[in-house]
Amino acid sequence: MDSFTSTAQRSAEVSAAVALHPERFRVLTGERPTGPLHLGHYFGTIRERVRLQEAGVEMFIVLADYQVITDRDTTAHVRENVHSAVLDYLAAGIDPKRTTIFTHSSVPALNQLLLPFLSLVTEAELHRNPTVKAELAASGRALSGLLLTYPVHQAADILFCKGNLVPVGKDNLPHVEMTRVIARRFNERYGQVFPVPDALITSAPEVPGLDGRKMSKSYGNAISLSMTPDETVDAICRTRTDQDRRISFDPEQRPGVSALLSTASLCLGVDPVELAAEIGDRGSSALKEVTATAVNDYLAPLRERRRAFASDPDLASRILGEGNEVANTAAETTLAEVRAAMGTSY
Amino acid sequence: MDSFTSTAQRSAEVSAAVALHPERFRVLTGERPTGPLHLGHYFGTIRERVRLQEAGVEMFIVLADYQVITDRDTTAHVRENVHSAVLDYLAAGIDPKRTTIFTHSSVPALNQLLLPFLSLVTEAELHRNPTVKAELAASGRALSGLLLTYPVHQAADILFCKGNLVPVGKDNLPHVEMTRVIARRFNERYGQVFPVPDALITSAPEVPGLDGRKMSKSYGNAISLSMTPDETVDAICRTRTDQDRRISFDPEQRPGVSALLSTASLCLGVDPVELAAEIGDRGSSALKEVTATAVNDYLAPLRERRRAFASDPDLASRILGEGNEVANTAAETTLAEVRAAMGTSY
Repeated sequence: MDSFTSTAQRSAEVSAAVALHPERFRVLTGERPTGPLHLGHYFGTIRERVRLQEAGVEMFIVLADYQVITDRDTTAHVRENVHSAVLDYLAAGIDPKRTTIFTHSSVPALNQLLLPFLSLVTEAELHRNPTVKAELAASGRALSGLLLTYPVHQAADILFCKGNLVPVGKDNLPHVEMTRVIARRFNERYGQVFPVPDALITSAPEVPGLDGRKMSKSYGNAISLSMTPDETVDAICRTRTDQDRRISFDPEQRPGVSALLSTASLCLGVDPVELAAEIGDRGSSALKEVTATAVNDYLAPLRERRRAFASDPDLASRILGEGNEVANTAAETTLAEVRAAMGTSY
Repeated sequence: MDSFTSTAQRSAEVSAAVALHPERFRVLTGERPTGPLHLGHYFGTIRERVRLQEAGVEMFIVLADYQVITDRDTTAHVRENVHSAVLDYLAAGIDPKRTTIFTHSSVPALNQLLLPFLSLVTEAELHRNPTVKAELAASGRALSGLLLTYPVHQAADILFCKGNLVPVGKDNLPHVEMTRVIARRFNERYGQVFPVPDALITSAPEVPGLDGRKMSKSYGNAISLSMTPDETVDAICRTRTDQDRRISFDPEQRPGVSALLSTASLCLGVDPVELAAEIGDRGSSALKEVTATAVNDYLAPLRERRRAFASDPDLASRILGEGNEVANTAAETTLAEVRAAMGTSY
């Protein structure tokens, strides 16, 4: 049995345990605040977070502001993106009374864990991380110290709050594996402090961007949650389709048409092949109309809630202030245990 | 002009400026608390620190407890070593009212600076650091993430308190150079926050260990400041010398004899060649007696002060508590400026 198969099996067992005993789990999850949250985030992770929250699982969501600079030289717009993400979370159903939303840069005791954790891994192990390799290739830049070490920082994210469950796509399994290694090595060397967290592999559908590539703000192919209905229509209308009036689902040959079908069918809860058949030979313009209506209808209640939240200009700051306080308390408690275990309390 | 020559020239200019305007300088210096402080520390750095303090220079001394685990898997005895170092500093003349003594693990906001700083250097730059290479070779272990990144952590040590002067032996010049690079890049990218610190190259004599190698607790060749006079005599008597009764200063051919001559002459303030001539052909036992008396006489007032300080069992904790508070205030102030400059205040 290969490692992925065994992890997937373990993930299924964990999933059953979560359903039975949600109170036994604490989840760490989050985003890099590099742009507005979009449908890819929503269907990929946010919807699952709301489900876990409603099931009674305690959750910490980190807005990983230091990880913005793993692959770029600027923090421009980071404050705006962080505030916007908070409103998106609230609109999607994240309840800050049950789920803690915080930012990396506000929790020094979390960041300090990077120091002892860096001593537990070799440079060779850092280099072997496939996600770091992929992100390095995508960045087209020299490997920075921060990109090389960010899986160790992610271990600090998960372990500062003693998170024992990490929802991930299978691309991010190596991060959870490194966290497990760090937790085990720390416990062996200094005494039991950390849980060894499990991955919860999410089966969420991948939402393609409007050009068929991965949905990403930097590709300009994203439908963000905070767009107006008109902006949504515009973005969908700009999608490059083709002359064939008969609509069919064929991501290889017809990326634009298929991306629209995927997007619309996710919002409508139908199968993209069936949706294609339904539209038949009414062509791209009908497909675009169907898609725009499906997205706008689906997002209407979320966007209405978002507008209401946004009318309070201090709300995001207040939520972050409260979340950062909870995170700091958790981090300071854990750091005190770490220092006691290491004998560095004076 | 090569880089070392220009740095040395700059260091001489800085040295003159320190004499003229001590109030313009803030020094960061420190030790890894891996064992008791010894004569090598005393003549190498501590005496110079006291001189700078008395000249009116503000100083921060870090007991770098996280750097204990750059090359070993244990923090055993770290608390004992930290407390002992505080007593050694006090006994040597460091005044905690003017000089701040603190520990890494007590100052989270300092450690957080590692995150933005790691984004400012490439992995290739980290690998090129000659001090890291030398320490890696000496450790005989796989390169840990912490050893690779520790020059960036040292930059955080220097810059958290806006230190602008770093006394170093020339072996440690690459660390100051990396700190200068990080300060400049941060300021260029996010706005002026940090001074670009200068190295003050110390001309302190190197004190050999009793076997002629570098003095180090792990070689068992050190005379620690906290030894009793009897322990000092024992250590000196165990030194391997040779049968030649005529004493001469020849570090290559006669490492033991020459180490004793170096040690005694430093304590007596004489030249080792002249001291050898004075002992003449009275042999190793006379040399050992001269050396033991010289060391014990030299250290007697320091050791008497140390005994007095040690009679208060809470003193070291109290001094560290006060120093860590000063360091935390400085670190939190700097971190707030860093976050404002980066736009990560929410």
